[in-house]
Amino acid sequence: MELQFAVAKIGKYATSESGDTLEMIERPHGGLSMVLVDGQRSGRAAKAISNVVARKAVQLLSEGVRDGAAARAAHDYLFTYRGGKVSATLNILSADILSKTIVISRNNPAPVIVHTAEHGLYLLDEPSYVVGVHRNVKPIISEVPLITGTLVVAFTDGLVHAGGYNPTSHLDPAAIVAEMLAENIFEPRRIVDRLLDEAVNRDNGRPRDDISVMSMAVLEGSGEEPRRLNGRLPL
Amino acid sequence: MELQFAVAKIGKYATSESGDTLEMIERPHGGLSMVLVDGQRSGRAAKAISNVVARKAVQLLSEGVRDGAAARAAHDYLFTYRGGKVSATLNILSADILSKTIVISRNNPAPVIVHTAEHGLYLLDEPSYVVGVHRNVKPIISEVPLITGTLVVAFTDGLVHAGGYNPTSHLDPAAIVAEMLAENIFEPRRIVDRLLDEAVNRDNGRPRDDISVMSMAVLEGSGEEPRRLNGRLPL
Repeated sequence: MELQFAVAKIGKYATSESGDTLEMIERPHGGLSMVLVDGQRSGRAAKAISNVVARKAVQLLSEGVRDGAAARAAHDYLFTYRGGKVSATLNILSADILSKTIVISRNNPAPVIVHTAEHGLYLLDEPSYVVGVHRNVKPIISEVPLITGTLVVAFTDGLVHAGGYNPTSHLDPAAIVAEMLAENIFEPRRIVDRLLDEAVNRDNGRPRDDISVMSMAVLEGSGEEPRRLNGRLPL
Repeated sequence: MELQFAVAKIGKYATSESGDTLEMIERPHGGLSMVLVDGQRSGRAAKAISNVVARKAVQLLSEGVRDGAAARAAHDYLFTYRGGKVSATLNILSADILSKTIVISRNNPAPVIVHTAEHGLYLLDEPSYVVGVHRNVKPIISEVPLITGTLVVAFTDGLVHAGGYNPTSHLDPAAIVAEMLAENIFEPRRIVDRLLDEAVNRDNGRPRDDISVMSMAVLEGSGEEPRRLNGRLPL
């Protein structure tokens, strides 16, 4: 088996930078974690917030702190640092070798899309609260098996706002993922690209918000090395 | 323009895990840093060392600490933590948006391969010392312009040891990169894959050491988003 993972990110149209931050870190007991944070507002102010929250979470995860504690700490840190005045959404996806699960942590009203071989496609959409503005906020934690057929897709709310707030025109990410799975497309790289492309198209190429999508999936594979990582960054 | 980056990593044959650690982090003023550490020996012991050194370096880089100071601090930390008894090599590649350069930091006797539009292909091979075992070790820092035509390739010493220590059979990474550039292949993803494949072939598919290769390059491109990242991890 092999874990595949991918991220695609775009900033709100005509802003200098995305207010979302994505960081990835190796877990000290094996596996990796991806942390995605959407800072309140957009541009530089949002970026400063999301950077602080993501940095705190990956720092703790890299020291072996469990996901729920890292998310609580990132919340407490932002709450203390900015006096409860600034919010951010926080999602963590962790492929954990010890527990043989993908651990999904949500501090984000936006749902997370999950597919497993046993249960098919479903949404994690239990009410969940952003970090930074209320006392003692907790993440909603779910675990799914780290076995072939498992797929997880998380995103910032820009993805579901693409095309406007009219429910008839807005993007339905779960429907798009369902279509792709029906076409036997299971690679995170292709799934995040398709979701982002559809969102940008609905906004006529001018995203009305920062949009970030991340995904992990377990696919058939030899289980042999090498490990690989690659990406691009516009300059 | 766009920055492309890639890593490929494989563990020594018949060990449970690679002793090399690669971490990547977004720089708070823009751009990204990749940190590659090869811990002394192989397997779990080496992994514990390389993890500590890489974590310290990325933590500081994520807080805006400059590369040379982060490398010095990672050294001091390992030297203090393990009483000067354990060594590691440390390479940092940073695409820095503020200075418009790629900053190359070497605490590694192994050279770094550079190509620039102005100077062509050359090696950074000034004598350089590992971290952890001597007092007050400094990195060798070089900067190259963050413009089209710039390519940087860094690796752990396993790459040059592939094929044995006999200079007639061992791998010459710079010669392979020169060949690829002559074929107009400039993408980091293809370059790290080719280098790793050649090394593993010379060891008949059973690497005699952990091998990791990382690369960054600036290519023509629209300079438009999205940013993308993807990878795979054998399970």
